[in-house]
Amino acid sequence: MKIETFKDLESTYEKTALENELITIQCWVRNNRSSGKIGFLNVTDGTARNIQVVYKKDIINNFNEVNRFTVWTAIEVTGNIILKENEDKYEINATNIKLLATSDSDFPLQNKEHSFEFLRDISQLRPKSNLFNAVMRIRSEASFAVHAFYHHFNFIYLNSPEITENDGEGAGENFVVKTKDNKNFFGEEAYLTVTGQLHAEAYAQAFKNVYTFGPTFRAENSHTNRHIAEFWMIEPEMAFNDQRYGMGVAEAQLKFVIKWILDHCQYELKICAKKNDENLINKLKKYLTKSFPIIDYKDAVDLLKKHQEEKQVIFENKDLYFGMDLASEHEKYICEKVYDMPTFIINYPKEIKAFYMKLNNDDKTVAAFDCLVPGIGEVVGGSEREANIEKILIRCKELKINPEKLQWYIDLRKYGYYKSVGFGIGFERMIMMLTGIENIRDVIPFPRFPGSIKF
Amino acid sequence: MKIETFKDLESTYEKTALENELITIQCWVRNNRSSGKIGFLNVTDGTARNIQVVYKKDIINNFNEVNRFTVWTAIEVTGNIILKENEDKYEINATNIKLLATSDSDFPLQNKEHSFEFLRDISQLRPKSNLFNAVMRIRSEASFAVHAFYHHFNFIYLNSPEITENDGEGAGENFVVKTKDNKNFFGEEAYLTVTGQLHAEAYAQAFKNVYTFGPTFRAENSHTNRHIAEFWMIEPEMAFNDQRYGMGVAEAQLKFVIKWILDHCQYELKICAKKNDENLINKLKKYLTKSFPIIDYKDAVDLLKKHQEEKQVIFENKDLYFGMDLASEHEKYICEKVYDMPTFIINYPKEIKAFYMKLNNDDKTVAAFDCLVPGIGEVVGGSEREANIEKILIRCKELKINPEKLQWYIDLRKYGYYKSVGFGIGFERMIMMLTGIENIRDVIPFPRFPGSIKF
Repeated sequence: MKIETFKDLESTYEKTALENELITIQCWVRNNRSSGKIGFLNVTDGTARNIQVVYKKDIINNFNEVNRFTVWTAIEVTGNIILKENEDKYEINATNIKLLATSDSDFPLQNKEHSFEFLRDISQLRPKSNLFNAVMRIRSEASFAVHAFYHHFNFIYLNSPEITENDGEGAGENFVVKTKDNKNFFGEEAYLTVTGQLHAEAYAQAFKNVYTFGPTFRAENSHTNRHIAEFWMIEPEMAFNDQRYGMGVAEAQLKFVIKWILDHCQYELKICAKKNDENLINKLKKYLTKSFPIIDYKDAVDLLKKHQEEKQVIFENKDLYFGMDLASEHEKYICEKVYDMPTFIINYPKEIKAFYMKLNNDDKTVAAFDCLVPGIGEVVGGSEREANIEKILIRCKELKINPEKLQWYIDLRKYGYYKSVGFGIGFERMIMMLTGIENIRDVIPFPRFPGSIKF
Repeated sequence: MKIETFKDLESTYEKTALENELITIQCWVRNNRSSGKIGFLNVTDGTARNIQVVYKKDIINNFNEVNRFTVWTAIEVTGNIILKENEDKYEINATNIKLLATSDSDFPLQNKEHSFEFLRDISQLRPKSNLFNAVMRIRSEASFAVHAFYHHFNFIYLNSPEITENDGEGAGENFVVKTKDNKNFFGEEAYLTVTGQLHAEAYAQAFKNVYTFGPTFRAENSHTNRHIAEFWMIEPEMAFNDQRYGMGVAEAQLKFVIKWILDHCQYELKICAKKNDENLINKLKKYLTKSFPIIDYKDAVDLLKKHQEEKQVIFENKDLYFGMDLASEHEKYICEKVYDMPTFIINYPKEIKAFYMKLNNDDKTVAAFDCLVPGIGEVVGGSEREANIEKILIRCKELKINPEKLQWYIDLRKYGYYKSVGFGIGFERMIMMLTGIENIRDVIPFPRFPGSIKF
């Protein structure tokens, strides 16, 4: 195998076969220091970990030129691989170093700590930092792991539309799509999608198991570290199956992705752990060892009340009652303090959930399930779907939703609609879980939030 | 292995081990006919090909009920597998058939031919037809094959933003994104993206090899069978590499996906071939056997002129000259009549190509490459990128593009930008190639085009 990238080097099975091997590789300078007759370049070609290149005045013919190479200069290095005992594993003993393209000295990512805000402002350059390189590599691997999981289990991938005629039934504020001269290109008002679920349900009625994985949008003027205007969602939908089955798939998918990242991104995880959360890797491993706990919404409220009263736990929102929407602090308390695991809360009151969720036999709650993850909050939201058209129409009425534009969706139930269950996973929130990154704006390449559209 | 789906049946390695096996499976009725004491259900669970279920009056206890099951009734069948010699391979001898959910008799997909227009109008139901089931399954497999290809070669997958601040530099008309009360959520005018290339280039400068695969948008009032307002694009970008390298990757990716579909979707391809193009499978196989021909734009124009003059080929657009934009009829003539293969046309005049394409040494042409596919036209469009800032700014001026909002992109060249090459593949056009479907509106689940936003 010809070695063309650092990844090829990393992937070479027999490390000892590399000893003294002469290679030529194109890469960027990350760091350059020298002491008189010997210099050290820290280089990367973006495909794997950084490597040290040693260059000596008496070996290369342009020592002084190389000495002046600034950060992110593009170069071609020829040299011999020297195996090492420490974690770096190998370095390159340069015999020749060629300049390919210079890098201006105003390169903003010098070797010092920068704030996340500063880096967000140079989103086009931040993947050149070690941390963002690791985060975006984990994001890429996690994305592939998601596809690998569903493909393995024969789920059909569908692309639900980004531009839709319905405005999301209370799932949040919508963006409107117009032509430049402010016309309705599609003949009527059109919106950016807030969910692919309705379309996924249609496809599940033809393929049994399907999933979407694409961008969704919320025009919410939200400035939390968990909300963003443009984000990616994974939305599987499974016909013939129920709430418990859906929860099983959600847990299996999360665990599959965690396992995949532990198996494929050890180096990147270590960088993330060092910068974000030293306990990151142990935490992820722990999530694999146990079943995710499941608690009924009703029991969760009782438990919160009990801990407020008996354990003097202090919540900002103290009014705890059946029917309330759990606040972020409550959700975090349950998954962080009570279980310290990703935790399913199920069977929420119908009043605080969407019109399409299956009404339970108690006539009060719906067969919903949210999965809350420590440090993040809701990562999964799902439910079994209501298969009965009359019940859906009653829910629409109660929630003041005009079912007219949803007729096609509701009518799916006319044709052999036995059961269906599905959920949405916020892809960025999953990446927060995998990297320990605390702000959702830092796990997507070019974040979109109120007032920010740069790039 | 417990058999739960028809796919499990299909995947069972030792077919003979299935003989007489008792299974229970949930599925939908596609067809139901009987003659006195014996009935035949054609059923599907959406995971694989349809299967025949034989039900006999003296075996099942609800023969008359089953007899009345309409198309797309959901049922649970228990019975024994009977292996067959013909292409169907097996059928099920029912011992019990249970109704799970009825299907209204107005189900619009009865067993007759429907026009594509009619089916487009019921996009939520059309995957239940054999043809659309096959097309969308091929689409799903092709999508996975794309990810598998780039993942295998260590390309980093990035999600370029859907909402951007720049309006695409002449790549076509943009959609504008507003809030419901007609405000600029992002503080300035925002657009739906027409390409992820600019952002991919930024990431290639950190990871070497990257790709995007996501939705892109054009607000063009176009009614051809090759244009659509919302479509998916695959956009790889490779730092340190040139035009020829990019063409190699494009050809390799197309061939990889074709091979994947030939290997994984024989059944679906046969359905497509039968309905759309009986030569489909041979055509796809042929594409694998040869290198894609490459012709210079200049030579292509000369060749068209020559054939117009000497071979009496009749074009609608007769004015052929260096500098012209090739019309669809010219492109088709070259790839269909001259080569009968996917064909690269390279080195177009700079005037008809984008500002970021690398200027060739002749100062007249750019290092662009389009790949034209018989029956479809342009499927791939790409180029080596201009690495020289001064040259880019001159091109912006010539093309009357304000470089202000592109400064971040142009400035990528300040930091070790040696070379970069990339291309975009229209995913839907690739699916047209793989399925023989002639209208782009029929290879995407919910097509968006002028005046059409239903669902």
